[in-house]
Amino acid sequence: MAVARQIHLVRRPKGKPVAEDFAVVEAPIAEPQDGQLLAEAVIMSVDPYMRPRLDADQALDAPLLGGGIARVLTSRHPKFKAGDLVRHGAGMQERFISDGAGLAPVVPQAGLPLTVYMHALGGTGLTAYGGLLETGALKDGEQVFVSTAAGAVGSVAAQIAKIKGCYVIGSTGSADKAAWLRDTARLDAVINYHDAPLAQSLAAAAPKGIDVYFENVGGEHLDAALPLMNVRGRIPVCGMISTYNGDRQGVKNLPLMIYKRVRMEGFVASDFNHLYAQFQADMAGWLASGQMQYQETVLDGFQRAPEGLIGLFEGRNAGKMLIRVSE
Amino acid sequence: MAVARQIHLVRRPKGKPVAEDFAVVEAPIAEPQDGQLLAEAVIMSVDPYMRPRLDADQALDAPLLGGGIARVLTSRHPKFKAGDLVRHGAGMQERFISDGAGLAPVVPQAGLPLTVYMHALGGTGLTAYGGLLETGALKDGEQVFVSTAAGAVGSVAAQIAKIKGCYVIGSTGSADKAAWLRDTARLDAVINYHDAPLAQSLAAAAPKGIDVYFENVGGEHLDAALPLMNVRGRIPVCGMISTYNGDRQGVKNLPLMIYKRVRMEGFVASDFNHLYAQFQADMAGWLASGQMQYQETVLDGFQRAPEGLIGLFEGRNAGKMLIRVSE
Repeated sequence: MAVARQIHLVRRPKGKPVAEDFAVVEAPIAEPQDGQLLAEAVIMSVDPYMRPRLDADQALDAPLLGGGIARVLTSRHPKFKAGDLVRHGAGMQERFISDGAGLAPVVPQAGLPLTVYMHALGGTGLTAYGGLLETGALKDGEQVFVSTAAGAVGSVAAQIAKIKGCYVIGSTGSADKAAWLRDTARLDAVINYHDAPLAQSLAAAAPKGIDVYFENVGGEHLDAALPLMNVRGRIPVCGMISTYNGDRQGVKNLPLMIYKRVRMEGFVASDFNHLYAQFQADMAGWLASGQMQYQETVLDGFQRAPEGLIGLFEGRNAGKMLIRVSE
Repeated sequence: MAVARQIHLVRRPKGKPVAEDFAVVEAPIAEPQDGQLLAEAVIMSVDPYMRPRLDADQALDAPLLGGGIARVLTSRHPKFKAGDLVRHGAGMQERFISDGAGLAPVVPQAGLPLTVYMHALGGTGLTAYGGLLETGALKDGEQVFVSTAAGAVGSVAAQIAKIKGCYVIGSTGSADKAAWLRDTARLDAVINYHDAPLAQSLAAAAPKGIDVYFENVGGEHLDAALPLMNVRGRIPVCGMISTYNGDRQGVKNLPLMIYKRVRMEGFVASDFNHLYAQFQADMAGWLASGQMQYQETVLDGFQRAPEGLIGLFEGRNAGKMLIRVSE
């Protein structure tokens, strides 16, 4: 029987994940039966949301949960044929058998690289779009703060806010990323939180306060934003990456929500499936017009997925972190 | 010129307010001019929300901001006559001159003591009603947790939830209050947070999780509730009394909001003015039918207002804390 590689979690990380928490394992793979297909990974996505799963939901000694784009190799499924590209959530497997459940066709537009379907035009983009416009109820021209603004979701959220005529502040953790946010994404104010105390930099950057804080970080970032929130401000909570590796600095400024009537709300990409068609149309237009810029950090080689995931928590990604498995 | 007493803040409290932070001061009081009236305090309200003001908004050496019911003594105002009872926000003054702005007539119903207009039928009740039904978007039959459930707002919120057919858990800090919640307010589960670690008691009391957490406390209470919140749970934030005296234990479990899609939102009573007529009709009916029970802690004497306010943070109130100034 043929074999294919999988990325397994072999022990639960203590704090920040390390290489030894993962293993590349060869597993036998069957032939597709009637109603099934065999697909090979083309691109895999690694995302911050995967970290909390490693503590509980993710099974040990099983493929890491996750999504990507795969190419159909052989098909005995009526809806798919060899050569089709599909978006999938089959996890980190070099090849896999599928009955079609959870697969969606990807038909790349001319002029757009396939990788874009893993970020701006994929779940990452939908997360930013729905989180900002629906959960965050963004209104044109508002004052917006986006944390990890050079990250995959943050960079899309920040630029959507710019497209909507908002004043946009972004925070990031390196000079390179700050330069990209200023010069390419063209935010109104950019904070490198390593340069000065965040609360101070943010207050200086937000003379009219904050109507929407697109929250990716938690902890100190949230404590810095709360005193600046305007009345009826919204905090759509996409992530709290500062807390994922066990470093949970308690948030102290929550009482400020009361008189400011701040609304804070969690969401995940699948909450916005009803927006998908509008999102695709808007985003394709913004990409084509150059209003939506992006960065990618692509690691070549299936076996580098753990390195990519670990790198997210060390800020090694500029924009979306991806693993390229095959061309 | 006549004089009248006022309660002043004479220095900003460090932590829990103490008697020395306040003074009873005699101030001259003029005669009402055309378009004005002279009123005397009948009942004054002391509330947890007053504490944060003492750190900033409240002027030193000026009457404490606050509300109450007063009786018109002499009137040269077209809309009010001597003997009228009015709800006011003129602060802690034994007598005061008003041009009528911010005054609303109070016409007590037969069978209801005037004090009820300072809690169940007043701003306290409206806060609970709007916070639970509008901000909290309570649905009949949901799982509800109310902190400081024997307090003025909490006791109303908990009983509204019972009236709406919900399973209601209440937390409180003494055996007497716990007994009242069980035997008189008839909650489904009552937690005395001095008896056992709160997270443990709450988990045991909430086998079906929590759909709505009516938040009055913050800190440890919020950290105990977050792991139990159901998907799309709501946390209307009425207050965070545990934090008001400077003891800000950071909240660590906020990342749980994300996958649970929890919505947390601050509010104040005036957000619900549009609900006022419906609230009055509902509440009068519930009081008349006995479905809404209440407790009052009434201190007699104008000069006891600081004692009343301080007592709130020591849990000395059963239900609403009031100061009776005159009959």
